Amino acid sequence: MKTDGYLSFIKPLERLITKKVLQVNPTIAPLRQEPEKTIIFVYEYERGEVDCRQLNSIEETFTYLNSSKNVWINLDGLKKADIDRICDHFGIHPLIAEDILSSGQRPKMDELNHLIYCLLNMLYLNQNNISVESEQISIVLGKNFVISFQEDATRDVFDLLRQKIKVKGSKVREAKSDYLFYSLIDLIVDKYFVVMEKLGEKIEGLEEDIIHRADTRTLAKINYLRKELIFLKRNISPVREMINGILRSETDLIEEKTERYFKDIYDHIVQANELAENYRDMMINLQDLYLSNVNLKMNEVMKVMAVVTCLLAPATVIGGIFGMNFVKIPWLHNPYGFFIAVGLMLIIPIWMIWIFKKRGWF
Amino acid sequence: MKTDGYLSFIKPLERLITKKVLQVNPTIAPLRQEPEKTIIFVYEYERGEVDCRQLNSIEETFTYLNSSKNVWINLDGLKKADIDRICDHFGIHPLIAEDILSSGQRPKMDELNHLIYCLLNMLYLNQNNISVESEQISIVLGKNFVISFQEDATRDVFDLLRQKIKVKGSKVREAKSDYLFYSLIDLIVDKYFVVMEKLGEKIEGLEEDIIHRADTRTLAKINYLRKELIFLKRNISPVREMINGILRSETDLIEEKTERYFKDIYDHIVQANELAENYRDMMINLQDLYLSNVNLKMNEVMKVMAVVTCLLAPATVIGGIFGMNFVKIPWLHNPYGFFIAVGLMLIIPIWMIWIFKKRGWF
Amino acid sequence: MKTDGYLSFIKPLERLITKKVLQVNPTIAPLRQEPEKTIIFVYEYERGEVDCRQLNSIEETFTYLNSSKNVWINLDGLKKADIDRICDHFGIHPLIAEDILSSGQRPKMDELNHLIYCLLNMLYLNQNNISVESEQISIVLGKNFVISFQEDATRDVFDLLRQKIKVKGSKVREAKSDYLFYSLIDLIVDKYFVVMEKLGEKIEGLEEDIIHRADTRTLAKINYLRKELIFLKRNISPVREMINGILRSETDLIEEKTERYFKDIYDHIVQANELAENYRDMMINLQDLYLSNVNLKMNEVMKVMAVVTCLLAPATVIGGIFGMNFVKIPWLHNPYGFFIAVGLMLIIPIWMIWIFKKRGWF
Amino acid sequence: MKTDGYLSFIKPLERLITKKVLQVNPTIAPLRQEPEKTIIFVYEYERGEVDCRQLNSIEETFTYLNSSKNVWINLDGLKKADIDRICDHFGIHPLIAEDILSSGQRPKMDELNHLIYCLLNMLYLNQNNISVESEQISIVLGKNFVISFQEDATRDVFDLLRQKIKVKGSKVREAKSDYLFYSLIDLIVDKYFVVMEKLGEKIEGLEEDIIHRADTRTLAKINYLRKELIFLKRNISPVREMINGILRSETDLIEEKTERYFKDIYDHIVQANELAENYRDMMINLQDLYLSNVNLKMNEVMKVMAVVTCLLAPATVIGGIFGMNFVKIPWLHNPYGFFIAVGLMLIIPIWMIWIFKKRGWF
Amino acid sequence: MKTDGYLSFIKPLERLITKKVLQVNPTIAPLRQEPEKTIIFVYEYERGEVDCRQLNSIEETFTYLNSSKNVWINLDGLKKADIDRICDHFGIHPLIAEDILSSGQRPKMDELNHLIYCLLNMLYLNQNNISVESEQISIVLGKNFVISFQEDATRDVFDLLRQKIKVKGSKVREAKSDYLFYSLIDLIVDKYFVVMEKLGEKIEGLEEDIIHRADTRTLAKINYLRKELIFLKRNISPVREMINGILRSETDLIEEKTERYFKDIYDHIVQANELAENYRDMMINLQDLYLSNVNLKMNEVMKVMAVVTCLLAPATVIGGIFGMNFVKIPWLHNPYGFFIAVGLMLIIPIWMIWIFKKRGWF
Ligand SMILES: [Mg+2]
Ligand SMILES: [Mg+2]
Ligand SMILES: [Mg+2]
Ligand SMILES: [Mg+2]
Ligand SMILES: [Mg+2]
Ligand SMILES: [Mg+2]
Ligand SMILES: [Mg+2]
Ligand SMILES: [Mg+2]
Ligand SMILES: [Mg+2]
Ligand SMILES: [Mg+2]
Ligand SMILES: [Mg+2]
Ligand SMILES: [Mg+2]
Ligand SMILES: [Mg+2]
Ligand SMILES: [Mg+2]
Ligand SMILES: [Mg+2]
Ligand SMILES: [Mg+2]
Ligand SMILES: [Mg+2]
Ligand SMILES: [Mg+2]
Ligand SMILES: [Mg+2]
Ligand SMILES: [Mg+2]
Ligand SMILES: [Mg+2]
Ligand SMILES: [Mg+2]
Ligand SMILES: [Mg+2]
Ligand SMILES: [Mg+2]
Ligand SMILES: [Mg+2]
Ligand SMILES: [Mg+2]
Ligand SMILES: [Mg+2]
Ligand SMILES: [Mg+2]
Ligand SMILES: [Mg+2]
Ligand SMILES: [Mg+2]
Ligand SMILES: [Mg+2]
Repeated sequence: MKTDGYLSFIKPLERLITKKVLQVNPTIAPLRQEPEKTIIFVYEYERGEVDCRQLNSIEETFTYLNSSKNVWINLDGLKKADIDRICDHFGIHPLIAEDILSSGQRPKMDELNHLIYCLLNMLYLNQNNISVESEQISIVLGKNFVISFQEDATRDVFDLLRQKIKVKGSKVREAKSDYLFYSLIDLIVDKYFVVMEKLGEKIEGLEEDIIHRADTRTLAKINYLRKELIFLKRNISPVREMINGILRSETDLIEEKTERYFKDIYDHIVQANELAENYRDMMINLQDLYLSNVNLKMNEVMKVMAVVTCLLAPATVIGGIFGMNFVKIPWLHNPYGFFIAVGLMLIIPIWMIWIFKKRGWF
Repeated sequence: MKTDGYLSFIKPLERLITKKVLQVNPTIAPLRQEPEKTIIFVYEYERGEVDCRQLNSIEETFTYLNSSKNVWINLDGLKKADIDRICDHFGIHPLIAEDILSSGQRPKMDELNHLIYCLLNMLYLNQNNISVESEQISIVLGKNFVISFQEDATRDVFDLLRQKIKVKGSKVREAKSDYLFYSLIDLIVDKYFVVMEKLGEKIEGLEEDIIHRADTRTLAKINYLRKELIFLKRNISPVREMINGILRSETDLIEEKTERYFKDIYDHIVQANELAENYRDMMINLQDLYLSNVNLKMNEVMKVMAVVTCLLAPATVIGGIFGMNFVKIPWLHNPYGFFIAVGLMLIIPIWMIWIFKKRGWF
Repeated sequence: MKTDGYLSFIKPLERLITKKVLQVNPTIAPLRQEPEKTIIFVYEYERGEVDCRQLNSIEETFTYLNSSKNVWINLDGLKKADIDRICDHFGIHPLIAEDILSSGQRPKMDELNHLIYCLLNMLYLNQNNISVESEQISIVLGKNFVISFQEDATRDVFDLLRQKIKVKGSKVREAKSDYLFYSLIDLIVDKYFVVMEKLGEKIEGLEEDIIHRADTRTLAKINYLRKELIFLKRNISPVREMINGILRSETDLIEEKTERYFKDIYDHIVQANELAENYRDMMINLQDLYLSNVNLKMNEVMKVMAVVTCLLAPATVIGGIFGMNFVKIPWLHNPYGFFIAVGLMLIIPIWMIWIFKKRGWF
Repeated sequence: MKTDGYLSFIKPLERLITKKVLQVNPTIAPLRQEPEKTIIFVYEYERGEVDCRQLNSIEETFTYLNSSKNVWINLDGLKKADIDRICDHFGIHPLIAEDILSSGQRPKMDELNHLIYCLLNMLYLNQNNISVESEQISIVLGKNFVISFQEDATRDVFDLLRQKIKVKGSKVREAKSDYLFYSLIDLIVDKYFVVMEKLGEKIEGLEEDIIHRADTRTLAKINYLRKELIFLKRNISPVREMINGILRSETDLIEEKTERYFKDIYDHIVQANELAENYRDMMINLQDLYLSNVNLKMNEVMKVMAVVTCLLAPATVIGGIFGMNFVKIPWLHNPYGFFIAVGLMLIIPIWMIWIFKKRGWF
Repeated sequence: MKTDGYLSFIKPLERLITKKVLQVNPTIAPLRQEPEKTIIFVYEYERGEVDCRQLNSIEETFTYLNSSKNVWINLDGLKKADIDRICDHFGIHPLIAEDILSSGQRPKMDELNHLIYCLLNMLYLNQNNISVESEQISIVLGKNFVISFQEDATRDVFDLLRQKIKVKGSKVREAKSDYLFYSLIDLIVDKYFVVMEKLGEKIEGLEEDIIHRADTRTLAKINYLRKELIFLKRNISPVREMINGILRSETDLIEEKTERYFKDIYDHIVQANELAENYRDMMINLQDLYLSNVNLKMNEVMKVMAVVTCLLAPATVIGGIFGMNFVKIPWLHNPYGFFIAVGLMLIIPIWMIWIFKKRGWF
């Protein structure tokens, strides 16, 4: 079996996916790799004005705790020392600081010391290998501030929000920090749909593959996509519970009118989960289709062999009969004997095939 | 393998179904295609009189907000500007306006600002390819009005209701707007059964197909129907929850006596869901039946090959033995040698088949 | 493949079963076939006396509304006009009248206007084709009366009750109408076990079939029974919920001491549901057994082919070698050459089979 | 196919198991077979003294109703007349008397007239055919008495308890009748683990079977064990609910400190249920292993056929070529022609096998 | 079939795993093997000082009951007499003493006599055969003490904690015994992730195995890992419930601020359970991949046979035709006859293969 083709196809990709799916919480690892540097951006805004600046050290964020405006502090790259200091200053519990630093966590929300904390994963689609990548983000909502902690400094899903903050009269500028908190989560959840749409396209392509050819390459793709879906579901599914936790919370950090916006996210995440379930059903359909196709193919080959075997049978026997070296063999001296024998070699298999056709085998 | 037959069969249909099943909420798409025009119809009625007219602009609906009669405003074709204006005037929350405009949403209900909002899908059966098509509809119930927002201007399921409104003394004419609201949902749910009945007929046809022939065409049909059922279930299943939401709501928009009618819809949607579950079980049965049939067919072919192989075996060996060119071969000069050899060629396979039959192989 | 045998077997039966399983609620059908006539029987009884008579018109039942005794009115055959009139007179809601008339409904109970309404299906076993048949029955319990609405005038499961009512001192004669209501449901549920017992016998027979022969006929029977079980489960499963509804209801139509009897039915219906689940598990077992048997059979055939192929191989080659027409072939003039060659033809395959046996292939 | 071996194996056993699994509640049967005689034993004990005696008639038990000591009445063999009399005297509801008499019931508990009633099955292991057998037992707890109703007079699981009652200072002697009630149920549940351990050993043996040989006998054993597990689960699973019912009950028949003992049984029955679930998973594993093994075996046979076919192919063709009777055939007169031809017959298949090996087929 | 390779691979390992999975609670066994000796260590500490000593007899622990400091008593090796004495002294209920002594129990928690009791399993990874091993541990939390009961004296997961207790100013030294209780459970749960990570690596390795070769050895590994996962899940899954029990408990043994730490464990155990679920999904994926691979391999072999059969067919027939001994055979005297015949033997199969290729079979 030429598994090399299959292997070479999956080599760079598959390995990664399997690792992703089986990956356990790195808090257990004794060593955590610290990023080289932390980038800190602050947006301080109210209806009338907005101020966006990059800070040079974690201590500079401390003054924003008592700002009279809305504040969004975004950290890219998480150094343990920095996280511990900022958490200490803003009253974030050490266990939550630990969660912020431990990547690979299950999405969840927590309410503690008059702060709301939530942790979830931003999903991106790697356009090269159409694989789902994740970046863990922790968001803390305080009375007038939101702090977001990102692992990867090179990307996030908040550019649209950054633009809106700068636009005077935009909804986010008019509202309080709870709406900012909502906006961050909304953008993350919206991105889930973008990622799912791409995966959906891949499933569609896979279906065409299965119909056209059902080889090891297709098998590799099915296996690959099933793992992506496990990974997707693991990231999306607990977010529902998380949003629900925010809705049921009795905090006064989130105003009555903003709660409705969280209910809107809730609707979306429910839909995302159902869609993921549909994707899984589709994959099961495709797998069955693949197996049935392989089966049908095998059947076709079996039939060819049966036909050839049937064609061969009488010819071999007749040839054997008149090839024997007995001294007395009838018709051997008959001038038409040869043609009769060859004729039988032709007529008998044709008659056999006619019978088989009639019985519905071919 | 002749997959082209399979492919050509599914080409126009299958592709669409897969897309339908994998389709994500278009709210995430940056561009939404606006319909060319909006058609607005208003029914204003009370026990004694009814007035039905087509309006030319969205502003004309505004006067109906404070009508003393029952009002049904139906919009076909959803322009963003129109929806925003009417929602603003009738006190419908911007998030709900967003839902109205986003097709492909999960059925749901909401209660807000003394309005009840519900969103679900009308299902139609495309008679050409027997596929299920959906049209999203949003229905808003106010104190004395019902507004329904439809995507597709060319069709809906409310013609029966339009007739009843015009009939003096009909139940809907006697009742308030909550009964009108009920009637709209009832007609949508009733249509689900019509669609399911047609799908049921298709499943019946499929069973006959599987029994008569189990080829790639059948495979394509099984795959096709499974996707239709995923799509059906996705549309029907959340409606149960939606009706339940209306029943548990503590609104005074729905009177005590109308609530009983919603309970009737609830019974129906529960039954529709169970039926969909039965359909799925039937499809699993059919798939198993298909696979077993393919297996049995393969077995038949294997048996033929075994029989022919067994027939061939002794003849070939005997022919080979007496076809060797040794100088001294016994019986070669015997005048009956040839007939004995041919006789053995016949007797041995018959004896073999008799043995096999006895052991239960054929 | 000889599918005709399979087809001819299922033709009269299978079609019906599939229809039964896929059947949707006929309320959606525009036309409902009215029965030709309605048969009305009334039992009016108290401890001391009993009066049983057949009524000629629906209006004659009206007087029983205020009878001081217990009254059981049984209608066989449901004409819309009659149902509407009697419902109107006895205070039964129009929606329930609609339910009474719509066959194919899901079992349920309702409590309305000081009446308890329940709808379920009587199951019968058609002894000819061992298929499960259903008849919908609606039962209404009022203060001193029970009305039962049956579709089919030719049969029900209440004969035992009719006898008991006539026996002075029997439990039903001593009790109120709530015990009569209980008795009707109890007899229906008891019949479920009778039907299941028969199905159980069929499953047992099927197992024997699968072991003895695993052909298309067996396949048809498996498929047939699976559909019967879907149908059975659909009818039995919601009855549990229905009885539970009666138990939780806060009606005073059912006395404290009769409630215990409904709890007894509840135990039975729970057991019936678990049994149906066990039946389903058994069917899965049998299906797996069938598939394994087909597989083993195929394996046996493959082995025969392998043996014959191995036997044939050396003989063919040796025969071919000494059948070649080269001028110089060794041993050709040896007087024992022929016997040595034939001997090799025998010894080599025996040696091969010995090897295969040792390696565990046969 | 030699199904007779399979059949002869299952004949005496399988039939019974299937019957056991499909068995419905015999209350529906018109005729119940009465045992020939009833054996009644009474233990009357308090801290200081114990009195154990066999009674001759059911009426003799009546005096124990108002005994000032703890009383355990055990009935082996259930005659309808006796049960009705004793139930009547001890205040046990007629419906419970019916339950006591109806074997094949689902385990359950009930609380009625200041009595606690529970019904469950004692499980035994038949050492001859390693099948699970059940005996229904009903236990009634009154203020100072416990009555146990057994079907089968020849066996139960209470011998350990009988010994303990006779030992002065044992826990049961020190405690009230609620501890006696606990002890009976505890012994029954403990026996479940003994039975499961034996089944576990059988599953282990089955695994070894599947690895060593995967024939019809193994298939029969898999099928057999799956049915035993269905039966086991049906008996064990509702006991959890039953114990829970006792724990939640607000009776004062069970003292605060005895309740803790029922919690201990609850832990055990939860564990028994999980174990049964694990057993089922193991069986699924084994079934998959069996199927894979059968598949691999088939593959092996296919490979042998492929090898032999490949070996045969060139020899047959070369033999055929030089066996033709053309007048002019090259090399025919060459003295080494024969050896070259035979050499080719050997070299070509060796070269083919080498290729196949390289491509990973063998 | 060469099952010996498979067998020899699983012999030492597999047997153990199956036993582990099917193992029932040994409380039912009449005999329990007592360890040879018990090792008792006590840590008595407060903020300022720590005292760690090994005790010689169980009676020496008694004095610690009323210590004013925090006390951790750890017992390795459980002798019935010792356990009964210590439980009696520290007020632990006899039923809990029984649980402590019965290994193979389901993880659970209990609250009794102002003590919190919890039982769970420490998991280790046997590096030799990569199998999961478990050791049952019981932990009792009293007002100022924690007692841990271990089965195996040679190992546990608490070394990190022992170090921390000795470090002045460490969190555990600053806190009360409830934090010590938390720390023990936290370390056990942390170890679950370490074990799962190793299993994850094994699953990854298995995937590579399946792709490269799909033989009996791979089959044995799949079977092996599935059993390990059943065992893992059985140990991890009830711990969630156990932690939840601690969180919902209304004890005052656990302070408000420590409860948050238990919530942290709760998050981790939820994640561990989801991960175990993902592992199971991955194993199902791999099993499907394995089966598909075996199928594809079989298909490849079938194709080779089909090709060879097709190549052989015309050559055999042509050779047979011209090998017949008829006196008059055309072309026999033609000097190119032989070459034409051999040419046909080559051209016809090439043409056949070309046809098959075109129809997509190869
Ligand atoms: Mg944490
Ligand atoms: Mg991650
Ligand atoms: Mg980032
Ligand atoms: Mg959004
Ligand atoms: Mg949005
Ligand atoms: Mg709130
Ligand atoms: Mg929305
Ligand atoms: Mg849509
Ligand atoms: Mg429309
Ligand atoms: Mg309706
Ligand atoms: Mg209607
Ligand atoms: Mg209400
Ligand atoms: Mg209705
Ligand atoms: Mg019906
Ligand atoms: Mg009837
Ligand atoms: Mg009954
Ligand atoms: Mg009864
Ligand atoms: Mg009540
Ligand atoms: Mg009963
Ligand atoms: Mg029984
Ligand atoms: Mg007994
Ligand atoms: Mg016990
Ligand atoms: Mg015990
Ligand atoms: Mg209690
Ligand atoms: Mg215990
Ligand atoms: Mg253990
Ligand atoms: Mg240890
Ligand atoms: Mg931890
Ligand atoms: Mg920790
Ligand atoms: Mg608490
Ligand atoms: Mg607490």
